[in-house]
Amino acid sequence: MNSDNSSGHISQRFDDELDAVKSQLTEMGGIVEKQVSDAIASLLDADALLAEKVVKKDKSINTLEVSIDEDCALILARRQPAARDLRLVLSIIKTTTDLERIGDEADKMATQAINLAEEGKAPHGYVEIRHIGQHVSKMLSQALDCFVRQDVELALRVAQEDKAVDLEYGTALRAMMTYMIEDPRSITRVMSIMWSLRALERIGDHARNIAEHVIYLVKGDDVRHLGLKKMAEKVHET
Amino acid sequence: MNSDNSSGHISQRFDDELDAVKSQLTEMGGIVEKQVSDAIASLLDADALLAEKVVKKDKSINTLEVSIDEDCALILARRQPAARDLRLVLSIIKTTTDLERIGDEADKMATQAINLAEEGKAPHGYVEIRHIGQHVSKMLSQALDCFVRQDVELALRVAQEDKAVDLEYGTALRAMMTYMIEDPRSITRVMSIMWSLRALERIGDHARNIAEHVIYLVKGDDVRHLGLKKMAEKVHET
Repeated sequence: MNSDNSSGHISQRFDDELDAVKSQLTEMGGIVEKQVSDAIASLLDADALLAEKVVKKDKSINTLEVSIDEDCALILARRQPAARDLRLVLSIIKTTTDLERIGDEADKMATQAINLAEEGKAPHGYVEIRHIGQHVSKMLSQALDCFVRQDVELALRVAQEDKAVDLEYGTALRAMMTYMIEDPRSITRVMSIMWSLRALERIGDHARNIAEHVIYLVKGDDVRHLGLKKMAEKVHET
Repeated sequence: MNSDNSSGHISQRFDDELDAVKSQLTEMGGIVEKQVSDAIASLLDADALLAEKVVKKDKSINTLEVSIDEDCALILARRQPAARDLRLVLSIIKTTTDLERIGDEADKMATQAINLAEEGKAPHGYVEIRHIGQHVSKMLSQALDCFVRQDVELALRVAQEDKAVDLEYGTALRAMMTYMIEDPRSITRVMSIMWSLRALERIGDHARNIAEHVIYLVKGDDVRHLGLKKMAEKVHET
């Protein structure tokens, strides 16, 4: 990860340690992104093999989470960072939690894909999975990007997108309920779609959380729970 | 919160700051516990007024999360804690996230309770809500307790209970699917029960996370993702 953090610490080793932990986070982000796109693909194509790959791969995300958190604790203990460096370490610690949870949600989608590959595809819901899946994948990719570039404007846009995803999710859920009522034989399979939609909606929430951590890191303001309007004000404060 | 942390820091003010943040965490835990029990009660009694109280109260949990995290960041910056003190601050930061998410899940249950109060109670599922609700509430209360008492044996039991909750949840879900298939007219209402069961299952996960933070705090080992057997070994290591 590049950042404007190379403000030249007295200790070169401190800079190296921060860079190492940032690059581990980038690695974790990349794996998580891939897991999400594979999970979506395994649902759309009823591809049980790909889904099983996703389930297996989840372990490596967990390992990275623990390793990054450990490195962050070591940096805090040995380097006693202050100001922006401290906020960087704290936002990395928060971000690993969100990335790990996104990994869990990808795992849940993959499990539903395995169910659907066994039982036969659901009669409905793939348009919604594809659409919300694309939207959420873009949010996740932007959230990771804005961490790397420490770009608060992009972070704000990610938070705004989350609202749109929530609306799309609500509409999709209501459509699925209607399908279930019209065709009760499809209930089990449509439920698999609903759990997957839920997982996508949660991934959107976590992408938003990551964006909020970036705003905290750059601006020093904790913008969680603030609402989009106030968040925008904080971002545009000079 | 009492802890064996009063190892006599050179600065009395440091001890006071740690105590203050611990007591804020206890306060937050108490509110979250009440939110969960009120949300369950509002579901069981189709009590929309109580449910609306839960939804409103969620804000105060969010405020506490931000305030505790801010205090923790200040302690890290000013006191530069090491060893167990550092782990204490880090586990508090992780625990506020879990408590806030539990608050969100209580909020989601309350929203379903409001739906059910409008549409009429679901024909099934209340036995499951009550049973899993009690189980999860006990786990949450124990998780908070083991933080206060820094009791790793209790923490281990909480993690073990989570496995039992997951099994109960799986059984309950399958029962709800059967009800929906048998009586499609009840689908919307049974779905409200299913979302609520899901929220309870997630609360169990977060209680387990809190227990894992306590083990990290006391033993210095990150036991997340380890599995119960290895976790028990770490707890019993001397």
